[in-house]
Amino acid sequence: MPKLTIETINPKVVEAKYAVRGAVPIRAGEIKKDMQIHPEKYPFDSLIMSNIGNPHALMQKPLSFHREVLSLVSSPFLLEKEEILKGHFSPESIKRAKDFMASIPVGTGAYTNSKGFEFVRKHVAEYIEERDGFPANPENIYLTDGASAGVKNILQLIASPGDGVMIPIPQYPLYSATLSLLGAKQIDYFLDEDDCWGIKKEELLRSYAAADTTIRALCVINPGNPVGAVLVKKDIEDIISFCHEKGILLMADEVYQINCYKEEKPFISFKKTLCEMERDGRIPKGEVELVSFHSVSKGIIGECGLRGGYMEVVNIDEEVLAQVYKMASVSLCPNTTGQLVVDLMIHPPTEPETRAIYDKEVSELFMSLKRRAKKVGESLTGVEGIHLNPVEGAMYAFPRIDIPEKAVAEAKKRGVAPDVMYCLDMLEEVGVCTVPGSGFGQRPGTFHVRFSFLPLEEVFDSFMDRVIGFHKKFLAKWK
Amino acid sequence: MPKLTIETINPKVVEAKYAVRGAVPIRAGEIKKDMQIHPEKYPFDSLIMSNIGNPHALMQKPLSFHREVLSLVSSPFLLEKEEILKGHFSPESIKRAKDFMASIPVGTGAYTNSKGFEFVRKHVAEYIEERDGFPANPENIYLTDGASAGVKNILQLIASPGDGVMIPIPQYPLYSATLSLLGAKQIDYFLDEDDCWGIKKEELLRSYAAADTTIRALCVINPGNPVGAVLVKKDIEDIISFCHEKGILLMADEVYQINCYKEEKPFISFKKTLCEMERDGRIPKGEVELVSFHSVSKGIIGECGLRGGYMEVVNIDEEVLAQVYKMASVSLCPNTTGQLVVDLMIHPPTEPETRAIYDKEVSELFMSLKRRAKKVGESLTGVEGIHLNPVEGAMYAFPRIDIPEKAVAEAKKRGVAPDVMYCLDMLEEVGVCTVPGSGFGQRPGTFHVRFSFLPLEEVFDSFMDRVIGFHKKFLAKWK
Repeated sequence: MPKLTIETINPKVVEAKYAVRGAVPIRAGEIKKDMQIHPEKYPFDSLIMSNIGNPHALMQKPLSFHREVLSLVSSPFLLEKEEILKGHFSPESIKRAKDFMASIPVGTGAYTNSKGFEFVRKHVAEYIEERDGFPANPENIYLTDGASAGVKNILQLIASPGDGVMIPIPQYPLYSATLSLLGAKQIDYFLDEDDCWGIKKEELLRSYAAADTTIRALCVINPGNPVGAVLVKKDIEDIISFCHEKGILLMADEVYQINCYKEEKPFISFKKTLCEMERDGRIPKGEVELVSFHSVSKGIIGECGLRGGYMEVVNIDEEVLAQVYKMASVSLCPNTTGQLVVDLMIHPPTEPETRAIYDKEVSELFMSLKRRAKKVGESLTGVEGIHLNPVEGAMYAFPRIDIPEKAVAEAKKRGVAPDVMYCLDMLEEVGVCTVPGSGFGQRPGTFHVRFSFLPLEEVFDSFMDRVIGFHKKFLAKWK
Repeated sequence: MPKLTIETINPKVVEAKYAVRGAVPIRAGEIKKDMQIHPEKYPFDSLIMSNIGNPHALMQKPLSFHREVLSLVSSPFLLEKEEILKGHFSPESIKRAKDFMASIPVGTGAYTNSKGFEFVRKHVAEYIEERDGFPANPENIYLTDGASAGVKNILQLIASPGDGVMIPIPQYPLYSATLSLLGAKQIDYFLDEDDCWGIKKEELLRSYAAADTTIRALCVINPGNPVGAVLVKKDIEDIISFCHEKGILLMADEVYQINCYKEEKPFISFKKTLCEMERDGRIPKGEVELVSFHSVSKGIIGECGLRGGYMEVVNIDEEVLAQVYKMASVSLCPNTTGQLVVDLMIHPPTEPETRAIYDKEVSELFMSLKRRAKKVGESLTGVEGIHLNPVEGAMYAFPRIDIPEKAVAEAKKRGVAPDVMYCLDMLEEVGVCTVPGSGFGQRPGTFHVRFSFLPLEEVFDSFMDRVIGFHKKFLAKWK
């Protein structure tokens, strides 16, 4: 008899849920393997993995500039071989790689400072200053292995067992899972589905008042995951005021800041808005504590596998920051490749030849994402039993699905949630892997499904056809 | 007034200690910066950072084969340019990069399976089979961001608040810090300093009996960190029997498995020993639960910055493994560069030209480490007030230091532990950064210091002279 069983291990681990890689994707993995041996068993010739924001997995190409620099930094001897460099690497790739090596003469194989390379943090601060028009301090930048590592570090810092942290519903399950693991309480505030998934101050007040514990922080995701919405300035200001009134930390997950597709709804950072409110005297200076997260996994570059990210801490006590540093130190340092990609992401080339290639690649990717966001909206709008808010940002559509009574009863019989049954059936029937709304949280009695709009344009129409075709059959079957 | 203060944040975070990047290295960082402006203020012309096992930071070079493959995989277009490849990349670097790209057609920019690339896990299993002569299952291999991420995952899995985990004293503070963060109890067992830092079963039994809580696991580090000792087979067998008798998980940190410098004391893995004991009927099959950890940060390659590692789980319940998978999923996946370096580390080149270069680089590095290990022993043996066990493995010497009464009284006045004062004074007087024994744990009333023997050979004599010179002055001053 094993001594470690589901009954004897840490119950907080067992309680934690993470549906983005849960039952539906796990079943998709089984099908993928089985299809190689028994393709005839399946009524589709390929699986479409739209369960996760993982662009390269769907054959999106990396940006050449970034990868050229990484190649040169991995083997610095290349920088001395004119015959290799000439004609194969763009001028600024070479220059940037040389700059990197000048900043880190020991190369990428050493542990760095627990906060990451100093020169990268300096560039991140410059990026934020340029983006927002307000000062940023490199000492307040912490490089991380993707945004997830930063979020986990800060939640662990502030939340003792029993403490409450406000998170949006629906939310990205990193938040709920981490709070479960910490034994902290998830305090739900609901996004307003009837108003483009906006955030209303009354709802924040209701959520706060209903909590029966000390609230330590409020988490917000903008642009939204899974909802694909972009917050308006008024909502951002209300959230800042709310955190100020309640004296709680504001954690702003802004990893989709580049992924905004509607001109009338641009990305506005929490840092910038806070600085404006401080400048205008609407909020006293230094009183709102803010941590903002960014990542190389999203945006246009989608370098998920390289695990790079950063967080900016604002108005946080120095003694507390020493604790953030110590916790980062227990993991020694973020990986150096990810650190350099952060630098490359926020510090594009300026030399004309390199920039021309870079701009072409970036603009093609961005325009394509924008077209796909639009197409998702157009395809699903008007389909019976599907209710979709405008797709404004991030990489996801999160439609509400009408699931007929009979299907709900059938799901109960099968022992799964109705939206899980919907997603499992979609996977089995048309080979599209999605995530059920219950994996993110949704208002009781409503059902949603999240799928990324990352499948490439050459297969996008067929992807939408599969989704809608399945939906119509599902509705007809259970009506 | 900030709301987040040292009093209001998670007290477990405040309690956690991590001296490897604690007061002494932090002061070293300040000196390093200040020296650039005021070199005249310091009685040394360079700092020697021997506080951490970070070979590249001390100018050790990466292995060419590994870095060539990484360069090619970062920019796969290079693989089509014969004129670049020829004469600049070794034949097997090219072949291996092509093999990698065939295994991962989407490249390194996508999230991988939460356990890491399947083909790498297969190679790791083959490596373990060859090392031990017993089967290993790729499904039981989990790739991780360095060994630390694996250790944290498993400790979180098994230890609820209040649970006990046995750890060696002295230990690497990853263990104590993680247990603090989990609210679990560190149950000390002492290594036997009088017998080459061996592990005695009586001491394990004493430690277990003295604990006032449920013990979930025993952690062991072999070769030892900070002690630099290699365990003999009898100790390994005793530890396995002990874990079997008590029904607790065995966590074996084997990241220094390549770093054994004495022929009469080779590395013996816990997995191999367990398999032998099972085969010989000394332990029933399948009853000892074991997790073993390895890393790309140590060994000969020392690729600390790339953050690669793996763990092998043995005899662990399938349902429990599903929880390990889920926890890995919350962080999405280990970074892909680190994953590929794991493959390169355990799967050396076989093509003759590439292998010749590889062997030369590896053997030079290994022989140099071996010489430095020997030199540390020879230099410190016989020095008054220094007691050093044979330096057999890992990258560290951990001598016991006699600190005179008067110095102990002075440290009390300064409000620091006597060994912290010793290390701080060494840093200020001779510019050598080390870690005090109190950062790892030591028998009450004894004092130690850990330093790596990684400074390059051209500065090694001067390094030892600085350490011994300081020590003699310190002793004379406080006698």
